[in-house]
Amino acid sequence: MEITAGQLLSQIEYPSDLRKLSKEQLHQVCDELRQFIIDVVSVHGGHFGASLGVVELTVALHYAFNTPYDQLVWDVGHQAYGHKILTGRKNVFHTNRKYKGISGFPNRGESEYDTFGVGHSSTSIGAALGMAIASKNKGEHDRQHIAVIGDGAMTAGMAFEALNHAGVANANILIILNDNCMSIDPNVGALKEYLTDITTSHTYNKFRDDVWNLLGKLPVGKKFTRDMASKLEASVKGMVSKSSNLFESLNLRYFGAIDGHNITKLVDTLQDLRNIPGPKLLHINTTKGKGYALAEKDQTKWHAPGLFDKITGEIFKKVIEKPQPPKYQDVFGHTIIELAEQNKTIMGITPAMPSGSSLKWMMEQMPDRAIDVGICEQHAVTLSAGLATQGMTVFCNIYSSFMQRAYDQVVHDVAIQNLPVIFCLDRAGLVGEDGATHHGVYDIPYMRCIPNMIVSAPMNEEELRNLMYTAQLPSNKSPFVIRYPRGEGVMPDWRRPFAEIKVGTGRKIQDGRDVAILSIGHPGNFVTEAMKELMTDGLQPAHYDMRFVKPLDTDMLHDIFQRYDRVITVEDGALQGGFGSAVLEFMADNDYKAEIKRLGIPDRLIEHGKPVELQREAGYDAIAIASAVREMLASKITVHSSL
Amino acid sequence: MEITAGQLLSQIEYPSDLRKLSKEQLHQVCDELRQFIIDVVSVHGGHFGASLGVVELTVALHYAFNTPYDQLVWDVGHQAYGHKILTGRKNVFHTNRKYKGISGFPNRGESEYDTFGVGHSSTSIGAALGMAIASKNKGEHDRQHIAVIGDGAMTAGMAFEALNHAGVANANILIILNDNCMSIDPNVGALKEYLTDITTSHTYNKFRDDVWNLLGKLPVGKKFTRDMASKLEASVKGMVSKSSNLFESLNLRYFGAIDGHNITKLVDTLQDLRNIPGPKLLHINTTKGKGYALAEKDQTKWHAPGLFDKITGEIFKKVIEKPQPPKYQDVFGHTIIELAEQNKTIMGITPAMPSGSSLKWMMEQMPDRAIDVGICEQHAVTLSAGLATQGMTVFCNIYSSFMQRAYDQVVHDVAIQNLPVIFCLDRAGLVGEDGATHHGVYDIPYMRCIPNMIVSAPMNEEELRNLMYTAQLPSNKSPFVIRYPRGEGVMPDWRRPFAEIKVGTGRKIQDGRDVAILSIGHPGNFVTEAMKELMTDGLQPAHYDMRFVKPLDTDMLHDIFQRYDRVITVEDGALQGGFGSAVLEFMADNDYKAEIKRLGIPDRLIEHGKPVELQREAGYDAIAIASAVREMLASKITVHSSL
Repeated sequence: MEITAGQLLSQIEYPSDLRKLSKEQLHQVCDELRQFIIDVVSVHGGHFGASLGVVELTVALHYAFNTPYDQLVWDVGHQAYGHKILTGRKNVFHTNRKYKGISGFPNRGESEYDTFGVGHSSTSIGAALGMAIASKNKGEHDRQHIAVIGDGAMTAGMAFEALNHAGVANANILIILNDNCMSIDPNVGALKEYLTDITTSHTYNKFRDDVWNLLGKLPVGKKFTRDMASKLEASVKGMVSKSSNLFESLNLRYFGAIDGHNITKLVDTLQDLRNIPGPKLLHINTTKGKGYALAEKDQTKWHAPGLFDKITGEIFKKVIEKPQPPKYQDVFGHTIIELAEQNKTIMGITPAMPSGSSLKWMMEQMPDRAIDVGICEQHAVTLSAGLATQGMTVFCNIYSSFMQRAYDQVVHDVAIQNLPVIFCLDRAGLVGEDGATHHGVYDIPYMRCIPNMIVSAPMNEEELRNLMYTAQLPSNKSPFVIRYPRGEGVMPDWRRPFAEIKVGTGRKIQDGRDVAILSIGHPGNFVTEAMKELMTDGLQPAHYDMRFVKPLDTDMLHDIFQRYDRVITVEDGALQGGFGSAVLEFMADNDYKAEIKRLGIPDRLIEHGKPVELQREAGYDAIAIASAVREMLASKITVHSSL
Repeated sequence: MEITAGQLLSQIEYPSDLRKLSKEQLHQVCDELRQFIIDVVSVHGGHFGASLGVVELTVALHYAFNTPYDQLVWDVGHQAYGHKILTGRKNVFHTNRKYKGISGFPNRGESEYDTFGVGHSSTSIGAALGMAIASKNKGEHDRQHIAVIGDGAMTAGMAFEALNHAGVANANILIILNDNCMSIDPNVGALKEYLTDITTSHTYNKFRDDVWNLLGKLPVGKKFTRDMASKLEASVKGMVSKSSNLFESLNLRYFGAIDGHNITKLVDTLQDLRNIPGPKLLHINTTKGKGYALAEKDQTKWHAPGLFDKITGEIFKKVIEKPQPPKYQDVFGHTIIELAEQNKTIMGITPAMPSGSSLKWMMEQMPDRAIDVGICEQHAVTLSAGLATQGMTVFCNIYSSFMQRAYDQVVHDVAIQNLPVIFCLDRAGLVGEDGATHHGVYDIPYMRCIPNMIVSAPMNEEELRNLMYTAQLPSNKSPFVIRYPRGEGVMPDWRRPFAEIKVGTGRKIQDGRDVAILSIGHPGNFVTEAMKELMTDGLQPAHYDMRFVKPLDTDMLHDIFQRYDRVITVEDGALQGGFGSAVLEFMADNDYKAEIKRLGIPDRLIEHGKPVELQREAGYDAIAIASAVREMLASKITVHSSL
C-alpha cells in the first residue's frame, strides 16, 4: 500500500521548501505531517507518541531557523520522525528501523540535518554546546545551536552537567525543554514537580509581571517609607533576576512556559529567540501522542505500539495458536515478586523502565520496595549500593547498553566494596530495531574485568529464575550480574520451582564427539537448533551451557579440554575480551592447546533490523554454528588425510 | 618522632568520648585536631587542605549526631582525616596511605563509622539516600543520614540525580553543602557562581526575612488596595516557598549559608536539623586549608603538598643531582601546546584536573581553546564529541579511573559515530597511595571491546609525544586512546622532534632467543630492567613494545609466533580481557599454539602503597618478569629432559 503525503507536505522535500510557505499554511503542514506519521507507523511500526507530540515544534524549528546551518540536536531521537520526513527522507520513511533501511534515530551518516547521533537520553545539551563553542571559536556568531530535550531526559545527570557549563560558556545555545511529564513511563522526581508547578500555578513570567506591576503602584506614606519600598523592590528584583527560577540560577535566560501545540506562538517565539545570543532555555508544554486520542490517553502503551489499525486503534497481536514462551522481562517481573514475598530484604530499582523491565508489577504490589528513580542509571546503582550496605537485597534492573552510563558506580560503589547488589541486565545482545546505540554487546568484557563480580547469563526462563533465586540467597556475598536478551525465551511452561545453582557451574546439555560447543546465555538455543541439523548429517558435537562467564566452571573446562581439541564458543556479545576470551585465558593459564573458533559479535557496529537478521549478520545464529562445526571437522579431516 | 595529640584530643578515642565534653570545650578540640593533622601530614604526607577546612564541621557532626547509628557519608573523602582521627584511628593515623596502613579515604572495611567507601566524587547523596530509604523501610524514623559534599562535587551529574530523587523520597537525609569554591583547582560553572551569589549578596534567608518583615508593614490606601497587597504577598510567598532557591525548587528545605568555621553555630544548627525529618540541605562556607596560612593562600598547591616543614612551610623536594625524567602529565601539558600552535583545530578539555593533567598551561596561553568543565566527565566527553563534529581536534584528558564515569559517552557519542576525539588517559595502571578507587586498571578491557577505537600506550615520553602527534593528524579519522601512568617517565631529554607512528605498529626493542616478551606501555621499562639481570645469567629473551592494544600489529605478531613458542605478555592493567587476552585472541584466530604467561593485574583489588610496592604485589615488576622468564625456560628444559 502506497502512503501518500498531503497536498503541502508532498511539496516539501527539505526545510527550504517549508520556508517558502506562509505562516498561515503551517497549520495545514502540521496536520498533514501528523497524518503521515500515523499512516506510516500504523503500517510499518516504530515509535509513535513522541513524534506526534512535537509535530508543531518540528515544523516551527525548521521554519524559524536556518537548518542545517543552525544546528538542531534531538535528545534521544524517538521524536525525530517529523524531522526526518521534513529533511529529505519522506520517501524512504517506510524503511524506518528496518534492516538496511533508515535508522529510527537521528544519524550523522544519514543526513546533514542529523547533526548528532542519539539514542540514549540526555546527550543533546552537551553535544549542542560543543557545536556552539566550536562556532564561537570560528567566529560564526550568527549561528544558533538548539537542543530539544524532554523533561524526562532532563533528570539525567549529564544534562545538568551541560546546563552548568552552558550557563558560563557564553555560546549560542537554545535549550528547548519539551515538558510532557513523560519518559516512556510517567516521569518522576522533584524536577518534574517543579516544572509542573512553574507551569500551572504562578508561572515565572506571570509572577514577574505581577510583581513589577504592583511594585510600580506601591504607595509611600508614614508607615511605609520610600526606603522600605526601594528595599523591597531591590530584594524582589534581585530574586527575580538571579534566583527565582532553577534555570536562571544556572545563568540561563528562561522563557515560557508556552503551549507547544500553538504553531503560531512557537514560530513567533523561536524567531525572537534566534536573535538572542548566549545560553537560553525555552520551556514548552506538549502532550505525547497529540492528535491521536488513544495515544494521548495511554501514553506508555502508545510509546511504540507496534502495528495498528489507525481508524479503530486496534493494536494487532500475533495470532497465538499454542502457549507461547514469555518475554524474559516478564519472567523477571513475576519472579522478583515471588522472591520478594519470601525474602523481605528484597527491593527492586529501575531507572525509568518500569514497563520495559516489567518491574511495574512489583511497584504496584509493593510500592515501598520497588522504585522508579527516573532516567539516572548512575544514581540507580549508587542508591542500590547504599541500600545494600543496610542489608537490603537489591535487584537493580538496567538495560545492558544503559548500564554503560553507570560503569563507574558499578566499579567504585558496588564492586570495590563487594556489595551483593544484583544487576539484571535486560536487552543484552543484539536488540533489533533500535540498532547500534541500544545493542547490549559490551557488558561481558566491561563486567568480567572487575574484581568480585559474578557474571552470569541464563539460557532460558527457568535458568533466569534460578539465577535470580541464587543471587538473592544470603549465602551470596558479591555483586551478581544476570544478563538476558530482549524478547521471548523458549519455555511456555516456565514457572517452575526454584532451585539453587552453584555459582560458577555450567551444565552439560549434550555429550558428543570431535567438537565441543560452549555457549553462554540465550544463544545456547541456537546451538540446540544447529544440533538438529548436524545430527541429520551424522555429526554430534557436545554442548555445554557454561552459565557463568565469571567465575568460569574450571572443573568442567578441565574435563572439556582433556576430551576435546576442537572447541567452539558462542556468545551474544563482543568478541574482544568476551566469553570466548575468558575461555582462551583459561586455556593459556592451564597450558591447554586446542583449536578454538569464537562466535559472537565482531569488532564492528551492527546496525538495526530484526534480531534474526542481525544475528545472521554477526555470525552466531544456528546456521553459523553449524557451519563452524563443519569447517572445523573438515580442516581436521584435511590434516588427517595429508598425514 | 612520636606525634602526640593535645590534652583533650588525647582523651578522645571515639565520638562517645567527644560527646562527654561541654560545647565550650569544642573550640580547643578543634585547635588540637587541626594541629594533629598538621603534625602528621607534614611528616607522613597525604591530603591536607580539605581536612583542615572541615575540622569544625567534623567535630560538630560527631558531637551533634549519634554516629555511627546516624550515618555519615563523606564525599570523595580527602577531607575525612579528622573523622578518622575521632573514630578510633588516631594511633594508626601515621600509617595513612602507606602500604598495609589505613586508607586515605573512608573505607567500610576499616571502621563502622565509615559507612561508605569513597574516592571518586559525588556519590555521597545517592549512597546516603539509599541508607535513608532502608531506614525508612525498617521503621527507624529517628535515624539521620548525612552526606557531606563539596561545591565542586555538586557539579557532577550523579549528585543532581540524587538530589532530584531525594526531593521526593521522604526519607531522613541531610545534605551538607561544603562550599569552599574549590575542587582541587578552583571550582567552575554556573552553580558555583550561584552559590557565591546566594551567599554574598541577598542570602535566601535574609531575603525571606526582609520580605516578610516588609510585607507586614504594607500600608493600604486608595491606590494600593488590600486586594493588591494580598496578591503581592501571595506571589512573593509562593516564590519564596517553592521556587526562590535552586535547592528548594527540588523540594529540599534549604538552610544557610552559615560560617563553617563557627563551631558553636554549627553545633546549634546541626542539633536543630537532627530533629527535622525529610530531605534538607545545609549550606556552609569554609576555607580549604583553614588555619594554616600558606594552605589558605595557595589552595591547589596545598591540596596534597607532600612532606613539609610545618613551621616554615617549606615543601621538601627530592634533591636533584642530575636531569630527571619529567612526569608524563607534564609531557602531555607541554606537548599539547606545541601541537596546538601548529594545528589550529586543537582544543583541550579537562574535567576539573587542570593541575593534575597539566592542561593548566594551555588554559593560560590559549584560554579559548582549553577548557576546565568541572567535575563532570560525562559532559566532558559529549562536549568533546560535539566539538569534533565541527572539525575540532579535541584532546580530552581524563584519569583512567575517572573515565569509567563517561563510559557510555565514549561508546555512544564518540565511538558509534567514529568521531576522532583523542582520549588521554592519565593515571593508568596502579596509581599508588590513592589505592583501589583510583587505580586505572580496567581501561584496556573496557576500551578495546568498542568498535572504531584505537587503543595505545607509550613506553616513554618520546612515544607519548609521537602518539599525540599521530592522533591529531588529519589522517586519523577515529577515536584514539593514549593511556599513560602517574608520575615520571624515563627520558630526561624527552623533548625531541615529532615523528608519526603508523597506527597499529609495534617496535622491536631487542632481538633474542627462546622467549619473547611483549609489553604495552610504561611497563616495557620493567622488561628492560629485567633484561639486564637475565643477561648476566646468559639469558636473552626478545622484547617487543607493542604500542597498540588495538589494532594489534598483526605482522609483528605473525613474525613473533612463527619464531617463538614461549611468550610473556606484560601490562599494567587487568588481566581479564586485557592486552594479554588480545594476544590470545590473535593466536586463536590464527591457530598459533604457544606457551603464554600473562603478567599484569590479577583479578582482585590492589590496595594503596607506593607504586613499586603495588607492582611487586601484582606481579609485573622487573623481578616478576625475570622470574617468569626463568620459570618458562625451566619448564621447557624439564620437558626436554623427560623426552
